[in-house]
Amino acid sequence: MIQLQSPYDMHLHLRDGEMLQNVAKYTAKYFSGALVMPNLTPPITSIELALSYKERIQNACGDCDFNPLMSLYLTEELNKSVLEKAREVGIVFLKLYPKGATTGSESGVSKVLDNKILEILEISQELGMFLSIHGESNGFSLDREVEFHPVFRELAESFPRLKIIFEHLSDHRSIALVEKYDNLFATLTLHHIALSLDDVLGGGLNPHHFCKPILKTPKDRDALLEVALNAHSKFSFGSDSAPHLRENKECAKGAAGIFSAPLALLGLAELFEKHNKLENLQSFVSDNARRIYDLPKTNKIIKLVKAPFEVPQEFNGIVPLFAGKTLAWNYA
Amino acid sequence: MIQLQSPYDMHLHLRDGEMLQNVAKYTAKYFSGALVMPNLTPPITSIELALSYKERIQNACGDCDFNPLMSLYLTEELNKSVLEKAREVGIVFLKLYPKGATTGSESGVSKVLDNKILEILEISQELGMFLSIHGESNGFSLDREVEFHPVFRELAESFPRLKIIFEHLSDHRSIALVEKYDNLFATLTLHHIALSLDDVLGGGLNPHHFCKPILKTPKDRDALLEVALNAHSKFSFGSDSAPHLRENKECAKGAAGIFSAPLALLGLAELFEKHNKLENLQSFVSDNARRIYDLPKTNKIIKLVKAPFEVPQEFNGIVPLFAGKTLAWNYA
Repeated sequence: MIQLQSPYDMHLHLRDGEMLQNVAKYTAKYFSGALVMPNLTPPITSIELALSYKERIQNACGDCDFNPLMSLYLTEELNKSVLEKAREVGIVFLKLYPKGATTGSESGVSKVLDNKILEILEISQELGMFLSIHGESNGFSLDREVEFHPVFRELAESFPRLKIIFEHLSDHRSIALVEKYDNLFATLTLHHIALSLDDVLGGGLNPHHFCKPILKTPKDRDALLEVALNAHSKFSFGSDSAPHLRENKECAKGAAGIFSAPLALLGLAELFEKHNKLENLQSFVSDNARRIYDLPKTNKIIKLVKAPFEVPQEFNGIVPLFAGKTLAWNYA
Repeated sequence: MIQLQSPYDMHLHLRDGEMLQNVAKYTAKYFSGALVMPNLTPPITSIELALSYKERIQNACGDCDFNPLMSLYLTEELNKSVLEKAREVGIVFLKLYPKGATTGSESGVSKVLDNKILEILEISQELGMFLSIHGESNGFSLDREVEFHPVFRELAESFPRLKIIFEHLSDHRSIALVEKYDNLFATLTLHHIALSLDDVLGGGLNPHHFCKPILKTPKDRDALLEVALNAHSKFSFGSDSAPHLRENKECAKGAAGIFSAPLALLGLAELFEKHNKLENLQSFVSDNARRIYDLPKTNKIIKLVKAPFEVPQEFNGIVPLFAGKTLAWNYA
């Protein structure tokens, strides 16, 4: 048996409405808290929107001892008074999407290094907030993350006291960048450390493995896995669990995102055990996040046992990661 | 207006049954001949199968002055008497599929450099046949073609009088290999010179751009396009038009293949005109093939005019390349 104390998912999509009702319970049950992404339609760009979204999430979660960590969608409209107010009500995460980079990024930032944005980041730094970044250029898919490196460098150097999060890091060339700057951290998903581009298109085309950033080479996967297995102190687990209905994946223009919330901890346990690193799982799914984001240890303990878990083909119309596969670990 | 004398499509999938009835007419109408791939289920592994398939193709084509160039699926079961008989009835193409590389490759060759296969190739060389190869390893998708280079080298050196065709060349690193050996030639598809991997997964996931070999980087696309535009003497046009019903593309395990037969010449004309190379189109779609494969000039002349062609969303349930787009050239 493994006991995971206060697991945190530092990158999560919960959607809204019926979808929220269907998916929130999984994360709420197995995690102490999760950083909830603000890329709804319309995006969560104000405190009012964030607080009412938080309330809907809490209602959807029921009595689960779960803390949804809310984030604000970064736009040029943010200003000092909004940011101060956000800080007061406990919203400390800003999420930066380059315009057009992924699902719900239509309202994102066109020019990250624009003066207005830099001003907002200066204030955020003073307020001790966190800046989460979907770091991709609009170049060729496999190079997008690396092409965004200069922006990370510029921001990390310009705001040395602002904690910046390289979200869902996917390219092995990004690891050294995170290591270089004291104020740069990263999240890793289960799918990026378990799969490669071949799982999307190496055999038949699998839309349920399609996500942004796109899964990369086996070399990238292996390098990221190594970082996770060793519970590298600058990296936290962030599932990027991103539910889409089957019909929006199996179509002529498939949506990007992989739904892993119900089985993320099980999949991680299997990977970590396979590589004889189970002793590092606690740090990867909790301790690192608690230290980086200053999050509390809670009384929630998730117990996993070595028993088969058959991943359902669907959860409410959503095909999950590892659908139909049998995992070696189950919830106790 | 452009007049294309005796266009040839040197790599084509026509399927069988109802699908054959639905697709054969497009190629038959616009080309003087086409090299028909033998990867049916079951594959065309004997002369009898090839000749009866040829008859079905001719029936499907009607009165079109079209020559289906038949190929035999290379298996270890081939032998001298079969090959001699093939030569007698005018079947001069062998198609080699590495087992598992693509649609209908389950009966393919496990070990290309096996003695039995080499013996068959020795006989084929003596008989003056052509060896068409789907050259991919079973490694990581983007490296499969390059990982297969050693096999091409070995075969080109072992059988210097056997004409070997590097089918649907997709990686810029393969161009130099084709140039290196006098007996090595290649085909290029329209989609590999017009699109890149970003057209599969750079935005939403597009299963109608999914093919094997997978579309590669913009750099690969541009290098291949350059070769086509200059009508490089060792390269012929081979559409690799490969129809699949929409429901077999838009699903959880999408089939590989792009259907381009009805518009291939139009798409090529647009590309060649855009790059001021229209004068080379005749060589790319006919003269090179006629010289490399010793094919006749026929009386068929395809006239294209500068007039919009709206590509239908579907041809009998098959979504074509450029569906819904308006091309600048049309059939006269």
